[in-house]
Amino acid sequence: MRWGDMDAYGHINNVEVIRILEEARISAFGPPGGTGRPGQEPEVPFFSSLPPEVQALVVEHRVRYVASLEYRNIPVKARVWVSDLKAVSLSINYLLIDPVTDALCVRAQTNIAFASAQSGRLQRISPAQKAMIAAYEAAPLMGGS
Amino acid sequence: MRWGDMDAYGHINNVEVIRILEEARISAFGPPGGTGRPGQEPEVPFFSSLPPEVQALVVEHRVRYVASLEYRNIPVKARVWVSDLKAVSLSINYLLIDPVTDALCVRAQTNIAFASAQSGRLQRISPAQKAMIAAYEAAPLMGGS
Amino acid sequence: MRWGDMDAYGHINNVEVIRILEEARISAFGPPGGTGRPGQEPEVPFFSSLPPEVQALVVEHRVRYVASLEYRNIPVKARVWVSDLKAVSLSINYLLIDPVTDALCVRAQTNIAFASAQSGRLQRISPAQKAMIAAYEAAPLMGGS
Amino acid sequence: MRWGDMDAYGHINNVEVIRILEEARISAFGPPGGTGRPGQEPEVPFFSSLPPEVQALVVEHRVRYVASLEYRNIPVKARVWVSDLKAVSLSINYLLIDPVTDALCVRAQTNIAFASAQSGRLQRISPAQKAMIAAYEAAPLMGGS
Repeated sequence: MRWGDMDAYGHINNVEVIRILEEARISAFGPPGGTGRPGQEPEVPFFSSLPPEVQALVVEHRVRYVASLEYRNIPVKARVWVSDLKAVSLSINYLLIDPVTDALCVRAQTNIAFASAQSGRLQRISPAQKAMIAAYEAAPLMGGS
Repeated sequence: MRWGDMDAYGHINNVEVIRILEEARISAFGPPGGTGRPGQEPEVPFFSSLPPEVQALVVEHRVRYVASLEYRNIPVKARVWVSDLKAVSLSINYLLIDPVTDALCVRAQTNIAFASAQSGRLQRISPAQKAMIAAYEAAPLMGGS
Repeated sequence: MRWGDMDAYGHINNVEVIRILEEARISAFGPPGGTGRPGQEPEVPFFSSLPPEVQALVVEHRVRYVASLEYRNIPVKARVWVSDLKAVSLSINYLLIDPVTDALCVRAQTNIAFASAQSGRLQRISPAQKAMIAAYEAAPLMGGS
Repeated sequence: MRWGDMDAYGHINNVEVIRILEEARISAFGPPGGTGRPGQEPEVPFFSSLPPEVQALVVEHRVRYVASLEYRNIPVKARVWVSDLKAVSLSINYLLIDPVTDALCVRAQTNIAFASAQSGRLQRISPAQKAMIAAYEAAPLMGGS
């Protein structure tokens, strides 16, 4: 969390929560291939092993704010897993948990599709990539979209 | 739209889209009471007539990215209406439309509840406020949460 | 200004002020060439007429916060002009003024250089571009960097 | 650094650099007192020991972008120190360094004044607070404002 994520109400702003979800996803499965420069190898380099011409596009967000997320100068706890692993898309599921009180603050699900940056056409997830992420598949938090 | 809303993919970032939805909601129904300073009276001052001790809290976002929203130096077209008008909550529904191609880019729905900043307890929407916004009620874009 | 530009202190956040300066610069002289999609032709299309392979890079910001900038639901007043127009760089000068009280809130100066996206080498501003912007040159707000 | 800090040029955006400076300052000297909730005690709790009614207000930023800061999935290296420690203000100095190449990317200086949230009047830094931060005082990066 960043101090600047707070809004005039003094809580983490609901939009910045979704930025934090993005960071949780990238921390778990790597930054999108073809963007930025090398840092450390992610433990599960799913997004980072995408070919540079393939973009991971957010198709849908569903975010439930169960309790106000309060700014603290320590990282929020995030649980991240995969569901709905299909030929050209998957869902990321998240729980955000207050690191001091252990209260559940946010439940969320993001549906992501893979597409060619040039043509816009949907791209199949390779078998190697499916194998990499299959161990992190579990039931979706929310129903189908 | 702001130039800085674009990300490394060169489109309006999915998180910034939700910031734009917030601006669309505020443009339609006013900024939350008790925050900022006076500017112009909103046409429908729903949020701005909230007592300062009542906060409008986002309970849920559902956002469908139908097509990439491209940055242009003219405002995106937004359609905003209300649904699910209940005692202590309501939903805002949005369509974002490319201002040049008229392509539908985003469909979204935000569920908002009203709570006391001090006690956190839910607060009823007053009859005067209900009357103000009832004319902008229509069918929800998406199913119940 | 956007409602989300406020921070936990309830004023426009100092970092978001610099985002607003960027918007003022783009509103005056167009969005950087090669980014986004067409909207309306800027009155002075200086940045938008940059060749797509040339990037406008911020070399220095100097920002003086003279008074707190308060969020209002009407646009902040911005005065923007050019100074230090050189072969490969220029400065943008800005004043941000409260649209209700007319109080001066921010004085700022941004030094921008032009470089090739591929090689990183500095690029000369073309005579046509210099001519376009020369009418908007005036004394710099602050001393040389 | 966050992935979303990149802009359409594919580097960390110059505005987000200033957000990162804020985080470096807070990491070194604590989040402003009276905002957020407790996390861990900062090593040097200078800002966090401000009375809740005293705000730390940015008076001036000077930021030199020496080289493009590239996004990596590891933290940027930051060096932070204090200068110009006066009765009601001080400056924070920063260096941002690429964590892989060790290249210097950003030199910056922020002048901060302390003021009452209610009256807006400048507030003296207490002797205890001065003592706490004096060990981190060194020469300013840039000249006086």
